[in-house]
Amino acid sequence: MARSFVIKVPASSANIGPGYDVLGVGLALFLELQVRIDSLHASETNNDANNCKLTYSETSEGYGSVPLKSDSNLITRTALYVLRCNNIRKFPLGTKIHIHNPIPLGRGLGSSGAAVVAGVLLGNEVGQLGFSKQRMLDFCLMIERHPDNITAAMMGSFCGSFLRELTPQEVERREIPLAEVLPEPSGGEDTGLVPPLPPTDIGRHVKYNWNPKIKCIAIIPQFELSTADSRSVLPKAYTTQDVVFNLQRLAVLTMALTQDPPNADLIYPAMQDRVHQPYRKILIPGLNEILQSVTPTTQRGLLGICLSGAGPTILALATENFDDIAHEIINTFSKNNVNCDWKLLDIAQDGAIVEQLPISE
Amino acid sequence: MARSFVIKVPASSANIGPGYDVLGVGLALFLELQVRIDSLHASETNNDANNCKLTYSETSEGYGSVPLKSDSNLITRTALYVLRCNNIRKFPLGTKIHIHNPIPLGRGLGSSGAAVVAGVLLGNEVGQLGFSKQRMLDFCLMIERHPDNITAAMMGSFCGSFLRELTPQEVERREIPLAEVLPEPSGGEDTGLVPPLPPTDIGRHVKYNWNPKIKCIAIIPQFELSTADSRSVLPKAYTTQDVVFNLQRLAVLTMALTQDPPNADLIYPAMQDRVHQPYRKILIPGLNEILQSVTPTTQRGLLGICLSGAGPTILALATENFDDIAHEIINTFSKNNVNCDWKLLDIAQDGAIVEQLPISE
Repeated sequence: MARSFVIKVPASSANIGPGYDVLGVGLALFLELQVRIDSLHASETNNDANNCKLTYSETSEGYGSVPLKSDSNLITRTALYVLRCNNIRKFPLGTKIHIHNPIPLGRGLGSSGAAVVAGVLLGNEVGQLGFSKQRMLDFCLMIERHPDNITAAMMGSFCGSFLRELTPQEVERREIPLAEVLPEPSGGEDTGLVPPLPPTDIGRHVKYNWNPKIKCIAIIPQFELSTADSRSVLPKAYTTQDVVFNLQRLAVLTMALTQDPPNADLIYPAMQDRVHQPYRKILIPGLNEILQSVTPTTQRGLLGICLSGAGPTILALATENFDDIAHEIINTFSKNNVNCDWKLLDIAQDGAIVEQLPISE
Repeated sequence: MARSFVIKVPASSANIGPGYDVLGVGLALFLELQVRIDSLHASETNNDANNCKLTYSETSEGYGSVPLKSDSNLITRTALYVLRCNNIRKFPLGTKIHIHNPIPLGRGLGSSGAAVVAGVLLGNEVGQLGFSKQRMLDFCLMIERHPDNITAAMMGSFCGSFLRELTPQEVERREIPLAEVLPEPSGGEDTGLVPPLPPTDIGRHVKYNWNPKIKCIAIIPQFELSTADSRSVLPKAYTTQDVVFNLQRLAVLTMALTQDPPNADLIYPAMQDRVHQPYRKILIPGLNEILQSVTPTTQRGLLGICLSGAGPTILALATENFDDIAHEIINTFSKNNVNCDWKLLDIAQDGAIVEQLPISE
């Protein structure tokens, strides 16, 4: 019998200033997979070793560069990992997946986090494994060890999260090289390995009641920055002063973003950071100037401003005057020869979802 | 005309695990000043250079060791600082203050924070200066630069706080040596100096809605530990891993302590710390064992356990089974030749207060 469903996973912005590797907020910009499984049309998927035909919408971010073989695409590789942990080797016969992705790649808006979450939901759904979101988070966190984007993309809203300390036995299990767990890219053979199931409840999280009056302005420079590059510029150690600086602001910020009315006098200084942003300035021309000159005093409606994830996207939180705020930032980037797009985004309240569709021929 | 009033300031517990120099919770154990100002009895205060006669209740903590001259007692020195900032040189003629202090000294329960807050309230009240609590916090933060205990003692409940970055002009003002600002101890002459008023809104804070089902068990070793000594064992720098460890747990903890019912699976790991507790173990015999062996698995009702402030007091959060939890910890201390008292404490919701009293002869 044929089945059809849609998976939607939000973009996300991590860190939010002081919350390095901690905070994430789901943004209403959705990676969407249209999935159809129909064994009567299995011949259409014969070209793929895992029974899966991938297509990518022409208007998607990354069109033409994202790999569309099921053993090299991050979404389907992740799904295959989930399936094989449960001793299912391939997708069901006749699986077709059409991907629409409006999340810019490599800009700090959680595109790879969304792909991992989508892949785990896909594996759970095609394998009819029946995992809860909390359990699916464990699979995600085996692939991506930073919980901030992943948690926000899976759970939605505004989240703080940590990875609990694993027992020695669990660490051993975790340390199986992912290359052995995830199917090999570039057409590697299925080794028949059944990877161990992840430990249970690796990630812990809370949701804060983000004030819905606070909107997210994402100013997106037209260049990519890999998270690895963006991490490589960070120092190996921090002074007590800088640690306390971030701890203090983080504790205040999570609460400040739930208060009504939002208080720029509290939020703006609480979004200051000394753990990652000062070091990333060298990678993002104009960032220094933007963080110093765009303030609630110069911009009505602005509450705070920070790097989105590892950058280069800037996240500005505001209650009004969105156009002016965006263009002030875009103009400063422009003086530094950086072109930008921008989007005004609401919070994604619900996180990742699966919608079953009726079958029609 | 005679006046009489009472000032009450709660004890407090700072840090709460990962929130080093950030979190503080007011505890329902109150430093109390009974103040009476009666110029008709001024002769009784003639012995004091500042018109102030101090007495200390015999059942108070620190009885016999706390100085009772107005220019050496921390409470009255602080009050004189506030008065002199406002160009009032002394207490009003015939000021008598009876102190009752049930907060153990030098144990990590905010006794000096309470004294500073009480002193600022005292100065504000006898000088009839009319400052708000937020403004009085500025005076406190000129004397004690760590906002955690001070904010909880002043504002009550469960607080997160930071000091905003001062402007260069403000820094200059702040950097006046406190010895010149606070009246000299040991009978130094009043120099006539009018210290500058503190900058405005130095401290920013939020209150979290602590779940009232969560009670505080304070296990108080019978030895003192100065905050200075307890700070001197801390490292000068922290690895990124340790920084992220604390940031993640802090963000989750503040929210977890507001949830109902309280979830030990979330709270216990969120109260882990890598910034101060591991280094303070050498100062507190038995601490290591207590932090490792007293868990929600071994102790029904336990939610989490940490050092209170700089220690040596242990703070255990729990919903029931208080006696057993306290005695388990006391027994472990006892094996390490440390004797303890313990108290079961509610949260102090309102912080510092002044109650006007009717005059009776």
